[in-house]
Amino acid sequence: MAKNDKFVSQIADIETDFPQWYTDVVIKTKLVDYGPVKGTMVIRPYGYAIWENIQREIDTRFKQAGVENAYFPLLIPMSFMTKEAEHVEGFAPEVAVVTHAGGAKLEEPLVVRPTSETIIGHMMGKWVESWRDLPLRMNQWCNVMRWEKTTRPFLRTSEFLWQEGHSVYASAEEAEAETLAMLRLYEEVARDVLCMPVLTGRKTEKEKFAGAVATYGMEAMMHDGKSLQSGTTHYMGQNFAKAFGVQFTDKDGALKYGYTMSYGVSTRLIGALIMTHGDQRGLILPPPVAPVQVIIVPIAQKKEGVLEACSALEARLKKAGIRAAVDDSDNSPGWKFNEWEMKGVPLRIELGPRDIESGKMTVFRRDTLEKSDEYLLFEAETAIFGLLQKICGELYARAETRMHDRIVEANTLEELLRGVDGGNFVRAGWCGCRECEDKVKEFAQATARVMAKENTSERCVACGAPSVHTVFFARAY
Amino acid sequence: MAKNDKFVSQIADIETDFPQWYTDVVIKTKLVDYGPVKGTMVIRPYGYAIWENIQREIDTRFKQAGVENAYFPLLIPMSFMTKEAEHVEGFAPEVAVVTHAGGAKLEEPLVVRPTSETIIGHMMGKWVESWRDLPLRMNQWCNVMRWEKTTRPFLRTSEFLWQEGHSVYASAEEAEAETLAMLRLYEEVARDVLCMPVLTGRKTEKEKFAGAVATYGMEAMMHDGKSLQSGTTHYMGQNFAKAFGVQFTDKDGALKYGYTMSYGVSTRLIGALIMTHGDQRGLILPPPVAPVQVIIVPIAQKKEGVLEACSALEARLKKAGIRAAVDDSDNSPGWKFNEWEMKGVPLRIELGPRDIESGKMTVFRRDTLEKSDEYLLFEAETAIFGLLQKICGELYARAETRMHDRIVEANTLEELLRGVDGGNFVRAGWCGCRECEDKVKEFAQATARVMAKENTSERCVACGAPSVHTVFFARAY
Repeated sequence: MAKNDKFVSQIADIETDFPQWYTDVVIKTKLVDYGPVKGTMVIRPYGYAIWENIQREIDTRFKQAGVENAYFPLLIPMSFMTKEAEHVEGFAPEVAVVTHAGGAKLEEPLVVRPTSETIIGHMMGKWVESWRDLPLRMNQWCNVMRWEKTTRPFLRTSEFLWQEGHSVYASAEEAEAETLAMLRLYEEVARDVLCMPVLTGRKTEKEKFAGAVATYGMEAMMHDGKSLQSGTTHYMGQNFAKAFGVQFTDKDGALKYGYTMSYGVSTRLIGALIMTHGDQRGLILPPPVAPVQVIIVPIAQKKEGVLEACSALEARLKKAGIRAAVDDSDNSPGWKFNEWEMKGVPLRIELGPRDIESGKMTVFRRDTLEKSDEYLLFEAETAIFGLLQKICGELYARAETRMHDRIVEANTLEELLRGVDGGNFVRAGWCGCRECEDKVKEFAQATARVMAKENTSERCVACGAPSVHTVFFARAY
Repeated sequence: MAKNDKFVSQIADIETDFPQWYTDVVIKTKLVDYGPVKGTMVIRPYGYAIWENIQREIDTRFKQAGVENAYFPLLIPMSFMTKEAEHVEGFAPEVAVVTHAGGAKLEEPLVVRPTSETIIGHMMGKWVESWRDLPLRMNQWCNVMRWEKTTRPFLRTSEFLWQEGHSVYASAEEAEAETLAMLRLYEEVARDVLCMPVLTGRKTEKEKFAGAVATYGMEAMMHDGKSLQSGTTHYMGQNFAKAFGVQFTDKDGALKYGYTMSYGVSTRLIGALIMTHGDQRGLILPPPVAPVQVIIVPIAQKKEGVLEACSALEARLKKAGIRAAVDDSDNSPGWKFNEWEMKGVPLRIELGPRDIESGKMTVFRRDTLEKSDEYLLFEAETAIFGLLQKICGELYARAETRMHDRIVEANTLEELLRGVDGGNFVRAGWCGCRECEDKVKEFAQATARVMAKENTSERCVACGAPSVHTVFFARAY
């Protein structure tokens, strides 16, 4: 058995056992490990570096949009949770509760934040006085906790990292516009940073955030055809403003309630990119978030001048803003090839005495597995930069083709079931009633992911009544 | 009363009521607010932007040093805390405990991390197998919780943000060297980023971290002559390695325990810079961390061309990498001057029709309150850059002079008391016994901040026995 085969055989088959493939990949590439408490994860340096890259891309866009970062306390008084009726109903069952601190029982139990609408609403109520204070647009990068029964690293864990943005506006129109603007920002990040196509749209009443008037989501199709909710934005109307007294004196002198909205994406995005792009050899990381974009593997590295040439090339690439590294460990080149392929590094440069002599380098593309020795060393920066760009476009196009090929139509529950069984998203009509949504869930184990912008269906897939919304149904993580 | 006086009068007198001055400044400049749970703080955008600047400076240095970021779970099994005897004794009294989650009582209570030596030790025990895995050097940026009785924003709060670095080495020498290297890194950050001189040195047994073999600290002198512990590094020997089974197979084939160390600084650094540099008008922010380095105030801003000239200047400064902003609000210039002075912005540029015509600009220095209209607009970037550099040096020099002027010697407890009563650090001999350290605390309400590198004293300040260590005693926050 060749070394390569042995290596690959350590990862479960991506087609027949995708859940095990996922677990193998995230653990073996050292992205993540299980924490000592059930349902928790440790984000290891290789995984955290991806998160830092995602954070930087999103944070830059927030700042350009005028959103400011802040930090609100982790612990929320239990009484805050109950101020918004739907909110407590949605989150109470999964909160972790601090009952003792400093050696004594607390007078009031404190909830470890599952999300921060309540505590931020409370502070907004304190800070907002006049129309001049609006809009108030803040974001925080933090940890949150939701006690989940079945967990999986990055996708669903009791604690995860995320950003949560919260804004208050003087008018419903502005708050609604921001809810859609942030959805577009997320869609742009998915496309340009994660090379990941998404479907976006409004969620049904059943699927919306506890306490929201309207929730919008972006859904991405994973390798197995299931959907992963990858980001959501929520328009709250005056629900939280009324619960927490977020009032302002308007220009006309009248005291009015503000309109709030919130939005968030989490470390789940790491799971999303793994399950969107990965293949049998392991990870395929989109260049914008790859901790190492180019790994340089010396060939015959003990030969004079080889390591020096590799280091010189690394320095040149780094200077050009490319995240390059040399693997000068004493492992064999074959071992290194496998290792870095599994770790999903977009490009590998092989550089040996013959390459150096001829002024050329061999470049291997992780996504297509293509190799070429026709690249000239002296123009390495341009070549690598161009290839990274090209990979972004092609990763996106490949995932988009898959998603579009796998959106099917259904007129009956049987067709819908067949669709999701085949690993598709199913576009179907819906009368808008909760009973039919529940029926789809029961019959096909599929949920309404998002509603299409326009209703182009004739009849509800479940009851046959006239369609009110065209919905994308899918099995989901 | 002039506007300026009215404004200043809102801040308590810095000389006669420094604690109230601090509270006034942090609240009025919107750095921070009190959270709804006693002892918690909300870091508002202006405060958080300072933290982001501090983070970036430190994080860059860590990465250059080869330390990688990771993220470990918030909740730690209670049983982990008890594995290292001194550690649990030190931290158990101040932990917050989660007893319920997901609607049920937990089998084992979980501690909200007060620090992460235990859980990281546990994971290191899992990851480290061979000498090839060493050293393992990780850091995390996160929130921690310590239930404190008396709290004050940034200085002591039940929850705060920090970084905690944790490394494991194969030898004691390497771990000890890293403990000192990280202390030097912190000292460099204090000097170059916060413009803040510090005393560094080893802590006494009484003051060391619970579970450490040796703790090193950096102490800064605040405006009132009290000391603020601003960062610590800890050499753990094999204490945590043995408690958590961090073992590796060495080159000689033998199974050995690793040597661990840890280090941390927190949002307390924001408190440190406020109390080091501030004056009666409010904050004086060191340029490297100031969210706005230059505020441009238009004079006669309704006159044609004024706002345009201000915006053009802002754009030029930003392009040169300077954090500039224009205050084009409808407040009066005088109101703006006060506001931005209180907020500690290092430089103010006043730009009106006359300046534009003459190609000059008026620049006001927040630290010295000096104003000059002799700066040429066309070389604004160079001038501003130079001034910001100069301010850094002079802020540091001013604080260093104060600290050096206020280090006094003492041979008796009475002299020591007089010294700390006068707002000084007191250098004195110490026999090394706990009783004498306690006696100093009782007699003068002062603690041993750090030990000097060399013992240059003859006798212990408390008992008169031969001195073993020369110690810096001070009252401390």
